[in-house]
Amino acid sequence: MQTIKPRTMSGFLELLPKEQKVFNDMKEKIENVLKLNGLCCTDTPVLELSEILLAKAGGETEKQIFRFSKGETDMTMRFDLTVPLAKYVSLYKNDLTFPFRRYQIGKVYRGERPQKGRLREFYQCDADIIGDGELPIEADAEVISILSQIYSALKVDAEILISNRKILFGLLQELNLQDKQNEILGLLDKFEKMGKELCYKEVQNLAEDKTDKIFEVFEIKKLENLKTCGIDNETYKQGVIELERVFELLKSLNINNVRLDLNIIRGLDYYTGTVFEGRLKEFNAISIGGGGRYENLTGYFSSSKMPGVGFGMGLTRLFVLLKELNKLDFQTPSYSKVAILPLGETVNYCFKMASELRKINIPCEVLYSKSFKSRMNVANKIGVPYIIVVGEDEVSSEIFGVKNMITGETKKVSLQEIKSVL
Amino acid sequence: MQTIKPRTMSGFLELLPKEQKVFNDMKEKIENVLKLNGLCCTDTPVLELSEILLAKAGGETEKQIFRFSKGETDMTMRFDLTVPLAKYVSLYKNDLTFPFRRYQIGKVYRGERPQKGRLREFYQCDADIIGDGELPIEADAEVISILSQIYSALKVDAEILISNRKILFGLLQELNLQDKQNEILGLLDKFEKMGKELCYKEVQNLAEDKTDKIFEVFEIKKLENLKTCGIDNETYKQGVIELERVFELLKSLNINNVRLDLNIIRGLDYYTGTVFEGRLKEFNAISIGGGGRYENLTGYFSSSKMPGVGFGMGLTRLFVLLKELNKLDFQTPSYSKVAILPLGETVNYCFKMASELRKINIPCEVLYSKSFKSRMNVANKIGVPYIIVVGEDEVSSEIFGVKNMITGETKKVSLQEIKSVL
Repeated sequence: MQTIKPRTMSGFLELLPKEQKVFNDMKEKIENVLKLNGLCCTDTPVLELSEILLAKAGGETEKQIFRFSKGETDMTMRFDLTVPLAKYVSLYKNDLTFPFRRYQIGKVYRGERPQKGRLREFYQCDADIIGDGELPIEADAEVISILSQIYSALKVDAEILISNRKILFGLLQELNLQDKQNEILGLLDKFEKMGKELCYKEVQNLAEDKTDKIFEVFEIKKLENLKTCGIDNETYKQGVIELERVFELLKSLNINNVRLDLNIIRGLDYYTGTVFEGRLKEFNAISIGGGGRYENLTGYFSSSKMPGVGFGMGLTRLFVLLKELNKLDFQTPSYSKVAILPLGETVNYCFKMASELRKINIPCEVLYSKSFKSRMNVANKIGVPYIIVVGEDEVSSEIFGVKNMITGETKKVSLQEIKSVL
Repeated sequence: MQTIKPRTMSGFLELLPKEQKVFNDMKEKIENVLKLNGLCCTDTPVLELSEILLAKAGGETEKQIFRFSKGETDMTMRFDLTVPLAKYVSLYKNDLTFPFRRYQIGKVYRGERPQKGRLREFYQCDADIIGDGELPIEADAEVISILSQIYSALKVDAEILISNRKILFGLLQELNLQDKQNEILGLLDKFEKMGKELCYKEVQNLAEDKTDKIFEVFEIKKLENLKTCGIDNETYKQGVIELERVFELLKSLNINNVRLDLNIIRGLDYYTGTVFEGRLKEFNAISIGGGGRYENLTGYFSSSKMPGVGFGMGLTRLFVLLKELNKLDFQTPSYSKVAILPLGETVNYCFKMASELRKINIPCEVLYSKSFKSRMNVANKIGVPYIIVVGEDEVSSEIFGVKNMITGETKKVSLQEIKSVL
């Protein structure tokens, strides 16, 4: 028979079992944090009506999606978890309790041409709190704290930079630059990439002699200084009050890896108040998740106003990053804690033993390849941390040698004592 | 602004948070069993090259898939987890250890017209053991035992019916009916649906006076009787030996809800030895998962022979079924174990308390809606099992009333004692 060359499309990350285990561990740690914070879980379809997913989108998004028709139905694979959330909240509004606190971890799809580091399928993790009509500022502190807890759970050395859009909105209003707001914010958003000199020059083209004042505020790193820099605008003052409250609540939540940074703008639309971004302390402070407050999640689907605050993080990219940084533990690749190797005709006995070990929650497997040599081979290859060889002697004495495969040490114990040795 | 009516496509199950929690619990119990058995986890892409996924498929499958082109690439959403496994094993053969024991839980897609009970997106759970060149019969017992452990973990009253294809293959060879093998097996496969009378009559059209002998064997329910019914064919005898060994190993594994039933045929192609099917004891013994032994998983992708044995079960359908049978516990819909309700200006203190409770692994949330009345309302609506109201008195005394929302009983304890009360 002619065979087809097996392959996986580029941009679709597929892991070997030992890597998959580490990825799953990472995902589980993240999910545990989300559960500890009492967030509900949603699991929306991967495939939705194009009309729904593209309610908001412009031409750029359209190119970067997997969209197709089946019969008369025009469908698209989700490219984020936010639009599906907006649909979900609008659709089930009467069955949900508000504030609606939810997370979702799932694969999302980008139809772009694959290039180095760009993924076309990846795991996205979103957490959001949605209010019905209004949403207290406590929610903003809550989502930032959850992101911080995730970094702690992953033992990632990161800090979260926090700003509030109202500060710069208010500043530009005060300076009578609101008609150039988007252009100026667009430049400030690129401050880190452009460097101060170039950024200042380009802002100056728009703001002229007001540029110094903009940068005076923009570079403030202390909350107190925001209050004393002489801006008297209402929006600005509201932003300062909100920021102050968020930092106060984060202190109550025992979150310390946060600081004010007005550089955090996060694009031009969508966010209206608090904005934040997690930055790795290594790798040039690369962004590893972020989000903010938005005025109305469900505008495209419903006339009710539903403000929200949330964050998103790409788990597949995070995994690749942490792997490069050697922050992941690939030391125990085996899914089993113990492998049982029959020596001679003891397979039945070994199966019985395995079922006893599983009863006391020890992940294990029996290696029954043809020869004993191949069984030892398998044990070494899967990297199992402990093995037990079971021959006739072990069956009759019911004393087993549990061998630590790393130290080489063997301890002789009864079946009941095995757990204490591992 | 004109709004778009939010909706989810039919055939795509989307759960409310309280249902999602029960679904996730079910999925977690299943995954725990798979982990306890030391199976590796694979997570292949949802989207693959059509050439790969359709390597084997005929015209019928083509209609029932979501297939589309992007640029010059012809892609398909996976419709099962078996073809992706075949690709995975062929592609990474040199990096895997054999027997390769793996599970995968993921969404699969069927492009068929939606009708009652038919899903177009659902969770599939597969477990397989793949050999390189050969695979001992122990693997057959292992996968059946895993399926049985899953039923136990879910407290589902089910039994697993087991047969071996070689029995009926050998019987028809012995009766010189091998040229009508597929037609006769096709009829026997429908025995339960057709009823004995009609099935017998239709088999008789093909097998004439040999029909009695076919049904004599076909209706045997005891292994001993298979040995004494006078069939001397090699294939048949091999089937009996394999069945005997599988039942013996299952006994060692302490699996008792299994029995011989030659009615289990499971379609005409693919399987070559052991075949089995889990049946619910209620609902007319409806099938809830099954599988068997196949000679060569990777024939379309590789010239190496890779036999395997595995099972598949549809988790979304299982969930719907168990829900209808009232087998699922919807009694604790809340994701939090405790809700903390600030009374007066104690929000900061409550946030601090919540972070302490999370440290000792208690999922909790602070209810900070505007009024105390609305906080109580939220507590009732999310169905949280315990609440703690924190006013100025509690802050100063550091003694908290933990109220059980089901019994109405309140216990006064210190922060350290809260865990013991839950």
